[in-house]
Amino acid sequence: MLHWRRDVRHFERRAVRETDMRDLLRCACLAPSVGNAQPWRFMRLRSAAIRATLADHIDDASASASARYADPAQRDRYQSLKLHGVREAPELMAVFCDEAPSAGHGLGTATMPEMLRYSTVLAIHNLWLAARVRGIGVGWVSILEPQAVAAMLDVPVHWSLIALLCIGYPAEQCSIPELERRGWQAREPWPDRLFER
Amino acid sequence: MLHWRRDVRHFERRAVRETDMRDLLRCACLAPSVGNAQPWRFMRLRSAAIRATLADHIDDASASASARYADPAQRDRYQSLKLHGVREAPELMAVFCDEAPSAGHGLGTATMPEMLRYSTVLAIHNLWLAARVRGIGVGWVSILEPQAVAAMLDVPVHWSLIALLCIGYPAEQCSIPELERRGWQAREPWPDRLFER
Repeated sequence: MLHWRRDVRHFERRAVRETDMRDLLRCACLAPSVGNAQPWRFMRLRSAAIRATLADHIDDASASASARYADPAQRDRYQSLKLHGVREAPELMAVFCDEAPSAGHGLGTATMPEMLRYSTVLAIHNLWLAARVRGIGVGWVSILEPQAVAAMLDVPVHWSLIALLCIGYPAEQCSIPELERRGWQAREPWPDRLFER
Repeated sequence: MLHWRRDVRHFERRAVRETDMRDLLRCACLAPSVGNAQPWRFMRLRSAAIRATLADHIDDASASASARYADPAQRDRYQSLKLHGVREAPELMAVFCDEAPSAGHGLGTATMPEMLRYSTVLAIHNLWLAARVRGIGVGWVSILEPQAVAAMLDVPVHWSLIALLCIGYPAEQCSIPELERRGWQAREPWPDRLFER
């Protein structure tokens, strides 16, 4: 299960069943969290106007990001990648972290307040894996200005945007990450990531 | 699988097999990551001296954190919780994020550099779930000063501490989070975490 690439940018048009969406959210909220604070806030985006504004925002951010590549070949390679499926994905979900959650009584966050955000990432991963076992794909879009998106969605000031997720049935199934197939970055041997003290 | 509580603080003494440790790390490194940067760095801690220093550091941090609770009953409740198994867990693993990874060519991090840290959290969650299916428990300790621990472990300056993991066979099996059983914080209904726009 973990092998199958889960960052999906090409989606079929067919809808995700409402019961599946509920199952994904229910599984997401089973994630462990610091102090059991459950700081995740899932915002399902149904407005076509919001979707269009978001897609334009992401395309602008991507154009800015491509300008950072000094090497023209690298820049061309970047620009040739399809980096999101925001316009096509049947479901869009913004995920926020409540930085001042009512639950948890602050346990475990005194020295590492970022644990609230990390707990939210765990919930996203639960959702991702719950989607995968149902044949549903998820793409996590990070080429955006989180504060601009939070403002666009009019959320409380203490909510931080963690992810924008595109959810739907993937147009293709492949175990090799798209960025590897497209020559951007291959998977490296895991023992290279292991150290000891 | 997602129901079973995974933040483990009470461990049996028996060792985790070396083949299992390798499997956990291999699964961890299958996580998706921004730009396929694979920014996770797993540091297995084998030194008894480092373990003792870490445990003392965490106990100090926990004492400071308990002083933040103005309500004496809440402070007593905090102090009665067992918050880590650093002294007993058969395996200790520090997990870092390389904030300047050689892989990935910066894709997806221009506006959200924190995606590298979030990718590292996804790898930790893979490890956690891979442990769970083998009957192995994991506790994520966050009551520590990340920079102090990074200094203690003498890592490159661009590595950020994301987690200190205690790994081993749990002394008890229970689906209800320990913090819920001990009256600290119960799980709340997931629909409370769902919003729409």
